Amino acid sequence: MQKQYWSRGAAAPWLLFVLSAVGVLALVWLLTDIFEKKQESRYSYIKTQEIKWGEPDPEKWKVNFPREFEAYMKTLKTSELAKISPYARYGGSEQVSHLDKDPRMKRLFAGYPFSVEYNEERGHMNAVPDMLNIKRLGDKKPGTCMTCKSPQVPLFMEEHGAQAFYNTPVTELVEKFGFKHSISCGDCHNSETMELLVRRPAYIEAQAKRGIDITTHEQNLKRTDACAQCHVEYYWPKETKYLTFPWAKGTSIDSIEAYYDSMGFYDWVHAETGAHMIKIQHPEYEMWSSGIHSRSGVGCADCHMPYTRDGSIKITDHWIRSPYMNLTNACLTCHRDSEDEMAMRIREIQDRTYNLMDRSEVALIAAIDAIKAAIEAGSTEEELAECRALHRKSQIRWDFVSAENSMGFHSPQEATRMLGDAIDYARQAELSATKLLAKHGKLEVAALAK
Amino acid sequence: MQKQYWSRGAAAPWLLFVLSAVGVLALVWLLTDIFEKKQESRYSYIKTQEIKWGEPDPEKWKVNFPREFEAYMKTLKTSELAKISPYARYGGSEQVSHLDKDPRMKRLFAGYPFSVEYNEERGHMNAVPDMLNIKRLGDKKPGTCMTCKSPQVPLFMEEHGAQAFYNTPVTELVEKFGFKHSISCGDCHNSETMELLVRRPAYIEAQAKRGIDITTHEQNLKRTDACAQCHVEYYWPKETKYLTFPWAKGTSIDSIEAYYDSMGFYDWVHAETGAHMIKIQHPEYEMWSSGIHSRSGVGCADCHMPYTRDGSIKITDHWIRSPYMNLTNACLTCHRDSEDEMAMRIREIQDRTYNLMDRSEVALIAAIDAIKAAIEAGSTEEELAECRALHRKSQIRWDFVSAENSMGFHSPQEATRMLGDAIDYARQAELSATKLLAKHGKLEVAALAK
Repeated sequence: MQKQYWSRGAAAPWLLFVLSAVGVLALVWLLTDIFEKKQESRYSYIKTQEIKWGEPDPEKWKVNFPREFEAYMKTLKTSELAKISPYARYGGSEQVSHLDKDPRMKRLFAGYPFSVEYNEERGHMNAVPDMLNIKRLGDKKPGTCMTCKSPQVPLFMEEHGAQAFYNTPVTELVEKFGFKHSISCGDCHNSETMELLVRRPAYIEAQAKRGIDITTHEQNLKRTDACAQCHVEYYWPKETKYLTFPWAKGTSIDSIEAYYDSMGFYDWVHAETGAHMIKIQHPEYEMWSSGIHSRSGVGCADCHMPYTRDGSIKITDHWIRSPYMNLTNACLTCHRDSEDEMAMRIREIQDRTYNLMDRSEVALIAAIDAIKAAIEAGSTEEELAECRALHRKSQIRWDFVSAENSMGFHSPQEATRMLGDAIDYARQAELSATKLLAKHGKLEVAALAK
Repeated sequence: MQKQYWSRGAAAPWLLFVLSAVGVLALVWLLTDIFEKKQESRYSYIKTQEIKWGEPDPEKWKVNFPREFEAYMKTLKTSELAKISPYARYGGSEQVSHLDKDPRMKRLFAGYPFSVEYNEERGHMNAVPDMLNIKRLGDKKPGTCMTCKSPQVPLFMEEHGAQAFYNTPVTELVEKFGFKHSISCGDCHNSETMELLVRRPAYIEAQAKRGIDITTHEQNLKRTDACAQCHVEYYWPKETKYLTFPWAKGTSIDSIEAYYDSMGFYDWVHAETGAHMIKIQHPEYEMWSSGIHSRSGVGCADCHMPYTRDGSIKITDHWIRSPYMNLTNACLTCHRDSEDEMAMRIREIQDRTYNLMDRSEVALIAAIDAIKAAIEAGSTEEELAECRALHRKSQIRWDFVSAENSMGFHSPQEATRMLGDAIDYARQAELSATKLLAKHGKLEVAALAK
């Protein structure tokens, strides 16, 4: 039979053969193409709807990304929706007043708006209303205050330039330019490719000054960059209001202090001591940078937005929240332990940090008391220079730990090390002021008898 | 055929069957026994020679354990034989003088023999000669000083009792009882079963007071117990000289201090300040207990005597030494990183600890200066009570980190936390003494002008 086939030279079998070969090749090409497409873009999705460049309204992203949208919306009321570990004690996502919880802060920030209102932050979707409601900023807030609050910011900057944005008062941004959307999709994603993208200049410029070109970063570093463009210490020069990160000498507290010192910068004059003070904002990126997770290549999103599964689909969990609320996905991917063990480890680190932070606050208050008394005793500006400089040195370190959102967890040993330094400077300030009191004959008998 | 077999009733096939069955069963039993024996004792070895109970001479163990013996002998000159990581900076196995390296220690230990001679320890096999040569102990050393130095100690205790040992002077132990062997095999191993065994009472008693029965410990904990019987903080009451660990309230520095305070214990009176001081010894076990390796179930031997291979045989490396000299076996079994990365992590932890330790020494010296001046200014004993108590509180914490052999590595955050406390107490001591100076009109113009 077979022999006949070949020998006859009929066209039909050849045709059959060629057709099947083409069919098989086509199938192979199709499958290869599907697999390659799947691999080449981690952002593959079903594009049901076009999204315009930088779209600030998350509702417009919802159709293409229903899972991410649903998760992200939970940041509106994280505390109500999330089950938190019973070990969690510090921080959280409720608008608790730091000043009520720790009245010492009113004196630590005396003369600065943070002594008027200073709340624990809530989830990302509350950014704009929470910022507009805060009392401490008054009516003259520059646009700079809003830099990290809305996906409308990068759009405005792309149209008018960053400097114009910083110079426009917040009230004008809201009333004239319709700013209303809180942080969401467009803040971190390229709306065409969905890639992570930093569109605010301060972070890009600050990293460039350290010799780091973040545009070369691969995905694992981008998962930190997207957060680090905002979760940092920053300042702005009073004249230009241009948002700047103080990293030219490095990101440790000592480097940041050296940077501020070199330009004679201060945020406010302390109402009780007259010291030229720095308010530290929320240096999560800087704290993380000196910690073991950073060393191990674990970035922000790995713990705060860990990968999760919805059926057969692997997605990044967009309900950004404390790992205390999500221990299995946040920690157990790497750590082979129980949720309880993880929570107890975090708590132990935080308790140690808190205890030393509390001790440094006690020392700071003692320093403030002594300096205030030295001023009242008639000390000269020249005499007061030393204790004021020490007050500044101490408080910038305490505040780096206090304002940072992890109670030392992001870098446990570095947090306690800098608190140790803070205590030393505070007690030296107290000592220096006490000597002035003695010099001016005002060291009270009560103090002496002690 | 088969049917014929059964029906014929012949004996031969039955006999063949029974014999093979018995043979198979015997083989199964033999193999099972071999496997069980292999499993039941991790200490299986070829016993070429009998070893008498508690044999103190390692040469007698050599024939049965040539690999362990050869490795252990290297502790005689670890520094000469080991290649140490270029990142290593603190400690080591050479008899370097702490007092030469850090002359401040002469003042910190003023009035106590540690200000006369205080050296870095060498490897275990040097224990007896190094102890006999140390100047600080004079000729009246009680036996207690030798508790951890020789495998002849538990033998003596088993014969005469622990109390008799503590009461016998070291000179007598050497001259009359022939003590000469440094720490070796018999200190940790049951000479019959080779199991790890704690034969000194202090550790067993101290753990019992905390509710821990170490005789129930499994192998992984025994690999810490064997070391922890000596690498601890200890004291002895002046009357009984009975070696005791101050753990009844816990093993943290705060618990140990509370224990000593509750009994009004002190090691010496500080020659410059008159404070009642505690000298901390080498609290490696206590420091490790609060660290992450302890939490993770990693014991002393896992890093300092990691498992290693000699051909097909897996053995515990008996060349006890710094993991800096053995990073692959010590660290990389668990940590998936390079040797360099491991060494850099250790170094970073140690540098942070060192920097804060240095800061606390500066504060302590300032406190000592101020208290000394307050005494010279004529302060009363009552007036001096506060600054002396603060000096004690500060120095016991500094010494816990300083005397412990890991430069904070065994518990990085706890080490810096307690140094933070130490700094606070030292500066408060200085302040308290400075107020006394002012009260007695002796606060010098130089100090005031500052």
